Amino acid sequence: MNALKLTAKTTRPPTVIQVGHARIGEGFTIIAGPCSVESEEQTLQTARAVKAAGADLLRGGAFKPRTSPYAFQGLGLEGLKFLEKARAETGLPVVTEVIDPRDVSWVAEYVDVLQIGARNMQNFSLLKEVGKSGKPILLKRGMYSTLDEWLLCAEYILSEGNPHVILCERGIRSFEKYTRNTLDLSAVPSLKELTHLPVVVDPSHATGRLSLIKPMSLAAVAAGADGIMVEVHHKPCEAMCDGDQSLTPEAFVELVGEVRRLRAFLDGKG
Amino acid sequence: MNALKLTAKTTRPPTVIQVGHARIGEGFTIIAGPCSVESEEQTLQTARAVKAAGADLLRGGAFKPRTSPYAFQGLGLEGLKFLEKARAETGLPVVTEVIDPRDVSWVAEYVDVLQIGARNMQNFSLLKEVGKSGKPILLKRGMYSTLDEWLLCAEYILSEGNPHVILCERGIRSFEKYTRNTLDLSAVPSLKELTHLPVVVDPSHATGRLSLIKPMSLAAVAAGADGIMVEVHHKPCEAMCDGDQSLTPEAFVELVGEVRRLRAFLDGKG
Amino acid sequence: MNALKLTAKTTRPPTVIQVGHARIGEGFTIIAGPCSVESEEQTLQTARAVKAAGADLLRGGAFKPRTSPYAFQGLGLEGLKFLEKARAETGLPVVTEVIDPRDVSWVAEYVDVLQIGARNMQNFSLLKEVGKSGKPILLKRGMYSTLDEWLLCAEYILSEGNPHVILCERGIRSFEKYTRNTLDLSAVPSLKELTHLPVVVDPSHATGRLSLIKPMSLAAVAAGADGIMVEVHHKPCEAMCDGDQSLTPEAFVELVGEVRRLRAFLDGKG
Amino acid sequence: MNALKLTAKTTRPPTVIQVGHARIGEGFTIIAGPCSVESEEQTLQTARAVKAAGADLLRGGAFKPRTSPYAFQGLGLEGLKFLEKARAETGLPVVTEVIDPRDVSWVAEYVDVLQIGARNMQNFSLLKEVGKSGKPILLKRGMYSTLDEWLLCAEYILSEGNPHVILCERGIRSFEKYTRNTLDLSAVPSLKELTHLPVVVDPSHATGRLSLIKPMSLAAVAAGADGIMVEVHHKPCEAMCDGDQSLTPEAFVELVGEVRRLRAFLDGKG
Repeated sequence: MNALKLTAKTTRPPTVIQVGHARIGEGFTIIAGPCSVESEEQTLQTARAVKAAGADLLRGGAFKPRTSPYAFQGLGLEGLKFLEKARAETGLPVVTEVIDPRDVSWVAEYVDVLQIGARNMQNFSLLKEVGKSGKPILLKRGMYSTLDEWLLCAEYILSEGNPHVILCERGIRSFEKYTRNTLDLSAVPSLKELTHLPVVVDPSHATGRLSLIKPMSLAAVAAGADGIMVEVHHKPCEAMCDGDQSLTPEAFVELVGEVRRLRAFLDGKG
Repeated sequence: MNALKLTAKTTRPPTVIQVGHARIGEGFTIIAGPCSVESEEQTLQTARAVKAAGADLLRGGAFKPRTSPYAFQGLGLEGLKFLEKARAETGLPVVTEVIDPRDVSWVAEYVDVLQIGARNMQNFSLLKEVGKSGKPILLKRGMYSTLDEWLLCAEYILSEGNPHVILCERGIRSFEKYTRNTLDLSAVPSLKELTHLPVVVDPSHATGRLSLIKPMSLAAVAAGADGIMVEVHHKPCEAMCDGDQSLTPEAFVELVGEVRRLRAFLDGKG
Repeated sequence: MNALKLTAKTTRPPTVIQVGHARIGEGFTIIAGPCSVESEEQTLQTARAVKAAGADLLRGGAFKPRTSPYAFQGLGLEGLKFLEKARAETGLPVVTEVIDPRDVSWVAEYVDVLQIGARNMQNFSLLKEVGKSGKPILLKRGMYSTLDEWLLCAEYILSEGNPHVILCERGIRSFEKYTRNTLDLSAVPSLKELTHLPVVVDPSHATGRLSLIKPMSLAAVAAGADGIMVEVHHKPCEAMCDGDQSLTPEAFVELVGEVRRLRAFLDGKG
Repeated sequence: MNALKLTAKTTRPPTVIQVGHARIGEGFTIIAGPCSVESEEQTLQTARAVKAAGADLLRGGAFKPRTSPYAFQGLGLEGLKFLEKARAETGLPVVTEVIDPRDVSWVAEYVDVLQIGARNMQNFSLLKEVGKSGKPILLKRGMYSTLDEWLLCAEYILSEGNPHVILCERGIRSFEKYTRNTLDLSAVPSLKELTHLPVVVDPSHATGRLSLIKPMSLAAVAAGADGIMVEVHHKPCEAMCDGDQSLTPEAFVELVGEVRRLRAFLDGKG
């Protein structure tokens, strides 16, 4: 392994990142919302639903890194304004992806946490820029990335003076095609050995299958994750992106209940 | 996917396999023991320890498929006799690997469950032979195998008239090298959608790291596995094989306790 | 890497294996024939065609390791007899796969080279048995196998006293799905650094696409391979197995011509 | 596969991109130079050497996307000025990597071809920006990328009105660790079926081993590639980056000779 400096476990106590009421790295944080922001109504309705269900943060993409240039690329500024409204109404802090270093400073004014997506994990210009922003960063693992490479990307952010990095395991690419990616849950306790940074798990992108989200969320809790990030849409069948892996608000309520009870049990409070 | 016949979920209720007191596929089954049988003393001491800790079955290899021809290849018949003694003393049913179709019938007389290792998952002659044996079979996933291919290997056994197959996820090969393999826990709920066969998880071979065995065992429980198989050695530092991933009896006692409590909680009995 | 003894390059000059007129490891050897032996007519017609085109050895499977137990499993003894007739008529030595250690000694009486397929690369019982047979062995790389693991499988054969091992690169499994497997041509010069054994390439199974067989055969020549093994069928559209990757006799004639000319050029005789 | 529009083979004849004297996609183009620009002397000496040996374009990195933030990140503008001098003296057009969309327009003034590295293949902001630049773009394959995903990245560039895209296969990530990556040469003829864009091969990054560069370069020619890109350093042992896979000028002279002769032979002019 390459030498880690700022991210290495030995150098610091576990990092706790305060975002709104959530203390990421201490309690168990649930981040939820639509893959992409599509309209004001969709954003507000989903935000209300995930708030009511007990989510800690709202996620929603205004800039979408899509495989094809002809796919929906996100609403941009308009989408950020919908997220801002949703935050104002629900009080939920907002996580959104940023994909261009030129957008970092102004996008940071609209949201609480900036997400670096899997495809941009080694976009070093972007990493440096979000490092300068001072905002909490949710750094997804690249689908081809070793733990070592991933942590060095976090190191890019920390070395710019920003200590607020949340790692997000979202599945690696393997030969198995039943699931969209292969969720590497052993990364969770492995990272706990290597770094002081909090680790959350995204079972939605990892599996790409609705039926697997609950079992893999519970498994993430049991593996020691600090939180999960799941896709929720108020009307999944109408979603412009990832509809087939988005939970309904009803399914999300059930998920939150089971996840919270399991975590309380494991914390000795069950 | 290829068409599954006998292993497909739709054709049957969940399979429960009775081995000794264990009902694999119904309760939560813990299989434990040394990677390889090395001596009578080692086998008996480890068997007593795992029995006392609450294991349901004893595992131990008498025939070892080793990467190098110059590595220890197992004690063969002598090893089976040690396992037989351990069963007589502890009452634990025994699981052992068989690697040659010529050995199936006589090895089957010494043990309760025959294991097909990852490297032999597509050894079709061996699959047919264990299919004819009528014994319960623990079929490990090949390290390069899709769920579809794995289930078709189970189909080889079932189509010989043997319905007693236990699937064992033991990690797939990926680019990540921090762990020995990449444990694919999403295989557990995926298999529950595809087949009626029970599914156990081997965190020892999957991770190759002592420190990861407990978190991944708990995650396996949460993901819905029917059991775990773990390596335990009464003196890991003296093991001839896999010593660095073998639990001590003390660590195994703790693991069993946590695993059983979690399963009881998830069953609504916690 | 594990220590190689008998297969390591340093211990011996390049191995040359004489089979019929072919000197594998010295000239450029072309092995061709149907994936599976289906009938006497098919075997004889294809054998005549590949002989006429300039093949050095005939390949044909009588025992087929198939993913599904319900797929055609090969003709067994009957198939071997067809191959024997084809050899008698054309003079071509025969390569056939063996998948069960119990069959090695009698199958060896019908053919000239025994093939170990990718799925059986680490079937150590089978490796030991073919090691004892004294016959030349064509050892395919497992689809998940490192060079190190592959060479240790060759070491299993050599350590039984059989020095006649031909390595066959046939593609590894990756995430790419345009091709059936990913042909790892860099394995050819890598193996030339590591071992004295001859190396051939199977572009048919590696790519699974007719249109890629010629370019990848030429690339194999340029990379320094000692030969190729390709699927040819006198009527590909009627093949029971791999018909969509089998060359017609006409296409094979063209392939042989281009491959031989390229090799002659590279040998300084073009 | 996703629908390709502008990059699909059916939509256009083979694309030929004129850069200096080179007609990429028509003849065989050799791109050579150091991994990173380190000093004026190193750049000029290497440029002279590759020019003398018969290279068509000079490569050299001024912006280096490094795994660790503490590794040498490139000389930036100073490096571009050294490349400009090298071009002025040798007449070789220059290829350099760009990693930040904010740099595209001004970097484009110093060089002839902009390279998008493997880690930035799906950096869509950067792809759109180089699409707008109008410059020829060398687009490397991501180490986890399918052909489909790669071509859709080219589509991002073409859909901005820039038809000058050169695809560069540089190895994918697999489990094999003898080579740095696994060179997927079957991608070359596969891409020739799918797209009209030219395809070059980078054996230096793909293999990471000096001894494999010549055989894999020759194999690339035989597979139908339109060119190669190789690392050359006037003093490899002093290189700040990738020194162990950089050819000496002497070795490069030999490589160019063999590659050119092979291509002439295959073109029927040998």
